[in-house]
Amino acid sequence: MKTNLLENKSVRQIDIIKVKGNENFPSTDDIAVEEPLEIRVSYGPKDHRESKNISVTMRTPGNDDELAVGFLFTEGIISADNQIKSVQRPDADCSRNQDNVIIINLADDFVPQLMKTDRNFYTTSSCGVCGKGSIESIRTVSSFHTMEREPLIIPLEILYQLSENLRSFQNNFSATGGIHASGIFDSSGRLLALREDVGRHNALDKLIGHALFTNQLPLKNIILVLSGRASFELIQKAAMAGISAVAAIGAPSSLAIDLAKEFDITLLGFLRENRFNIYHESNSHKIIRAFVAKK
Amino acid sequence: MKTNLLENKSVRQIDIIKVKGNENFPSTDDIAVEEPLEIRVSYGPKDHRESKNISVTMRTPGNDDELAVGFLFTEGIISADNQIKSVQRPDADCSRNQDNVIIINLADDFVPQLMKTDRNFYTTSSCGVCGKGSIESIRTVSSFHTMEREPLIIPLEILYQLSENLRSFQNNFSATGGIHASGIFDSSGRLLALREDVGRHNALDKLIGHALFTNQLPLKNIILVLSGRASFELIQKAAMAGISAVAAIGAPSSLAIDLAKEFDITLLGFLRENRFNIYHESNSHKIIRAFVAKK
Repeated sequence: MKTNLLENKSVRQIDIIKVKGNENFPSTDDIAVEEPLEIRVSYGPKDHRESKNISVTMRTPGNDDELAVGFLFTEGIISADNQIKSVQRPDADCSRNQDNVIIINLADDFVPQLMKTDRNFYTTSSCGVCGKGSIESIRTVSSFHTMEREPLIIPLEILYQLSENLRSFQNNFSATGGIHASGIFDSSGRLLALREDVGRHNALDKLIGHALFTNQLPLKNIILVLSGRASFELIQKAAMAGISAVAAIGAPSSLAIDLAKEFDITLLGFLRENRFNIYHESNSHKIIRAFVAKK
Repeated sequence: MKTNLLENKSVRQIDIIKVKGNENFPSTDDIAVEEPLEIRVSYGPKDHRESKNISVTMRTPGNDDELAVGFLFTEGIISADNQIKSVQRPDADCSRNQDNVIIINLADDFVPQLMKTDRNFYTTSSCGVCGKGSIESIRTVSSFHTMEREPLIIPLEILYQLSENLRSFQNNFSATGGIHASGIFDSSGRLLALREDVGRHNALDKLIGHALFTNQLPLKNIILVLSGRASFELIQKAAMAGISAVAAIGAPSSLAIDLAKEFDITLLGFLRENRFNIYHESNSHKIIRAFVAKK
């Protein structure tokens, strides 16, 4: 049996603060590593090889060769094993992070269906990984990054109600079990706006689009509650909208935590009715500290 | 308070077969609608407007204007409300489905940061929506679509073990709570291969890449078990790999069901230890029927 479950580099143990009821204590948490993978193909006759960047996907490291080849296959770019000559990492001087780039060398006589890809691919999201370092490139475009933070104080008992509040509004309108929600709440736990979508990034884009239409950007003095997991792209979008506190009902990814730290965005995970984990707490405003005894 | 929860067109009621224990009965299920949205921008001086297709995302219809504008904002293409002149659907003759295209007309004097998008965007997945109809275009590239199906018979008690089996293998290796898995099982419930990733599509691409490397394509006589929801892109990838039976622990989207019907792929959802829903059952091989009394 072949399981090839994730290797060590796919899971990272980090220090967190666990909050349960009125107590809090330092703890550790295993988090899923999320990093960009750039998939390149090299093709053409021996004396005239060409190279093309096919895709960048946010993935968990491990089995990158399978991921790249599986992607090329499910996109219809290749159709058989013998169309592949080799799979390799780039040379050290070609890329800032060799582990996040993989090159599929196609057989010399095989002509890949690359024209098809221009039409078939679609972007579901974005980040800066293709050009500069991902976090660096976001800092450039986020106009709210340098703004003064105002203190945001959310009582613990309000925090504990947020996941239930989000869910209750969702349940009123959808019983599909398959729709994500993004909601923003003020410090008294009042729902200000909520949007739903099969795509978690779309639900947040809708919410931010609503805020733009109603002149509410930057979204200060609110907490964003996510119905599912917190991935890199959700924290990126939150940062763009000037949001400084995010609570996810699910788990955050490694890159989401890195980004939250970089942008000093408070990030809570596994938010339930009497507990949550603190992955990062903003220095500029202590949401939790004031209400949690003896840290 | 603005919730703007999903409108009626965002949820569709469909006929399904519910299976509980040894019983099965016709029922209905509310499913989340998933459809592509093409986001276009129109920009430039009045006498020299240009148009660019910025992105196609799989989304749940509803608040499309907010989604498009929120996307442009979180990508850094626009930064303020007054950069937008209007939001509209295309003319009837420009597109095969007006409801799935939205055009953001930018202010005449505003120069959008479109150069940035070429570098910043990345593709996390693919479909054929940009060119031809999505289902149509997959049929073109899937080399296994016309192949003869062999009968696949999976006893009910084996089906009921699959979600637990998938989870037990996952739990052995990851306690993150944030990693998706794709696993393939034979008709006796034996796990043949399993891959994990923060991205559900990546987990499946890894699995299919593994199958390609080990000459197992097309993946006949197996059932694919997905740890989460079944979206369009997962069924598309399954179809490409010749998989004819998919069971999701979560909910399927509308487009996933449409595609499963089109390709005659058996699609089960909400697979638990004593129940599941049948969204489509393949005509060529009855996985369930033989083991479920009196349909």
